[in-house]
Amino acid sequence: MPLLVVGSVGIDTVETPHGKAEEVLGGSAVYFSWAATFFTPVRLVSVVGSDFPHHYRSILQAKNIDMRGLEVMEGKTFRWSGRYKDTMHVAETLSVDLNVFGKYVPRVPEPFRDSRFVFLANGLPSLQLKVLDQMNEPDFVAADTMNHWITESKPELLEVLKRIDAFILNDGEARQLTGEHNLIKAAKSLQKLGPSYVIIKKGEHGSLVVTEEGFCLVPGYPTEHVKDPTGAGDSFAGGTMGYLAKMGNASTENLRQAVVYGTILASFNVEGFSIERLQQINMADVEARRRQFASMVRF
Amino acid sequence: MPLLVVGSVGIDTVETPHGKAEEVLGGSAVYFSWAATFFTPVRLVSVVGSDFPHHYRSILQAKNIDMRGLEVMEGKTFRWSGRYKDTMHVAETLSVDLNVFGKYVPRVPEPFRDSRFVFLANGLPSLQLKVLDQMNEPDFVAADTMNHWITESKPELLEVLKRIDAFILNDGEARQLTGEHNLIKAAKSLQKLGPSYVIIKKGEHGSLVVTEEGFCLVPGYPTEHVKDPTGAGDSFAGGTMGYLAKMGNASTENLRQAVVYGTILASFNVEGFSIERLQQINMADVEARRRQFASMVRF
Repeated sequence: MPLLVVGSVGIDTVETPHGKAEEVLGGSAVYFSWAATFFTPVRLVSVVGSDFPHHYRSILQAKNIDMRGLEVMEGKTFRWSGRYKDTMHVAETLSVDLNVFGKYVPRVPEPFRDSRFVFLANGLPSLQLKVLDQMNEPDFVAADTMNHWITESKPELLEVLKRIDAFILNDGEARQLTGEHNLIKAAKSLQKLGPSYVIIKKGEHGSLVVTEEGFCLVPGYPTEHVKDPTGAGDSFAGGTMGYLAKMGNASTENLRQAVVYGTILASFNVEGFSIERLQQINMADVEARRRQFASMVRF
Repeated sequence: MPLLVVGSVGIDTVETPHGKAEEVLGGSAVYFSWAATFFTPVRLVSVVGSDFPHHYRSILQAKNIDMRGLEVMEGKTFRWSGRYKDTMHVAETLSVDLNVFGKYVPRVPEPFRDSRFVFLANGLPSLQLKVLDQMNEPDFVAADTMNHWITESKPELLEVLKRIDAFILNDGEARQLTGEHNLIKAAKSLQKLGPSYVIIKKGEHGSLVVTEEGFCLVPGYPTEHVKDPTGAGDSFAGGTMGYLAKMGNASTENLRQAVVYGTILASFNVEGFSIERLQQINMADVEARRRQFASMVRF
């Protein structure tokens, strides 16, 4: 089933201990879409400036991503520049220029409004709500957020939570939003705010999934060669939502498998800058790593 | 098969956000032994002072722990006092009085020297070596350590590593000893120093097991009610080594199951002060939680 994503398309400059990538394709909607297309067609809603390189658009179009929702506004494309130090855990943002993304109000094209699966990537909660207002009763909506919105837009974020099925966020955000350090308690508190499913991302330590039936635990894939962590969370969400959309329903069992696929897609993503590693792999590579992962976790 | 442990027996005073326990039974060998006896008889080698309460000795003796290796020296028993703040991650040590433990050189009683499975709890590496010198070619030796010995006794610790089969340590120690932040790389570096098996404990995030055949990943059990984390690592090691000793050999498959049991024992242990929670449970409780855990991780 078609999957809609609303998020950023940007141009990144990233420096890690393994090198530097300048003016490469980035943004939450890009990482998400690429990972999701391993499973299902994706409809992308975002904005770029008039300077957005034509070959970046071609790369996305070639990959079963419907780009009719990509607006082009006069001005410059969203740009982010960051650096990861030795531990590769946290990006130090060197510069952010929202450019056209700062003025953008997402418009979901008419043919996209019947999408059954929807992902709201990290963004202003009031805009996430505006997207939901345009949709025609989707079956399953998931959203991401970030620390900034928890501080600056909490009332709107709480409105978002009432209207989504799954909340995908990282451990620090879960703790910040609930005031609970224990992640099990934090996840249960988040469930009470609306979403039936809470997926807490713990970076290299994997993820904790809380459903109405209980917990699923998915460890991190043991990636030895992390080149650039940028987009790990979005490719994780893309693999997860892509698999759910392919299956057509978000049963607990499907969600469990989905999060495993999300983990695998994220593990490939961090092995290269931008989407370069995701571009090199095919579904056979994904399945091979998934089997290898399952054999590590089986007990 | 009988399992030998050499470690501390002490009296702890612990304060956490959930209460305070004063002058309770503690020490690495106590937590280890209690967890291990769910699977196999344990032979304990340690020291206490002449003030060691008789009822603490009775508690241990009643639990299939052979105490013939517990020396009583004139003086006071090892005492530790610590406090855990809100996050419950790291103990703040308020006081340590080594007392008789500071003068102790472990002596393995003659009937213990044929033990096939041996655990060297955290302690001075030169004393860990002295224990090994007294043993009659055990089948499987595991050891723990701590940051202090990595700094202060590195040459002796490296000697220990050459003579053991499994090294059980936490993530911070693995990084400190190898200089590798990536835990996969750190584990592989540690393997090169001697032990075929490296088990890296990541606290609430579970553990990473590296064997000659590859990785096993065991997530943390999602414990909602952590009352006192003291002894988590030692009860984990006890459950792990206890299961291996019961099975009689440390195949990769057995090790995988063993680490799951270690995880379960540690998850019970942190639900109470001292060994109070471990005293309340039986093997049926362990098996029930193990099945529940397996259902969370299955994929």
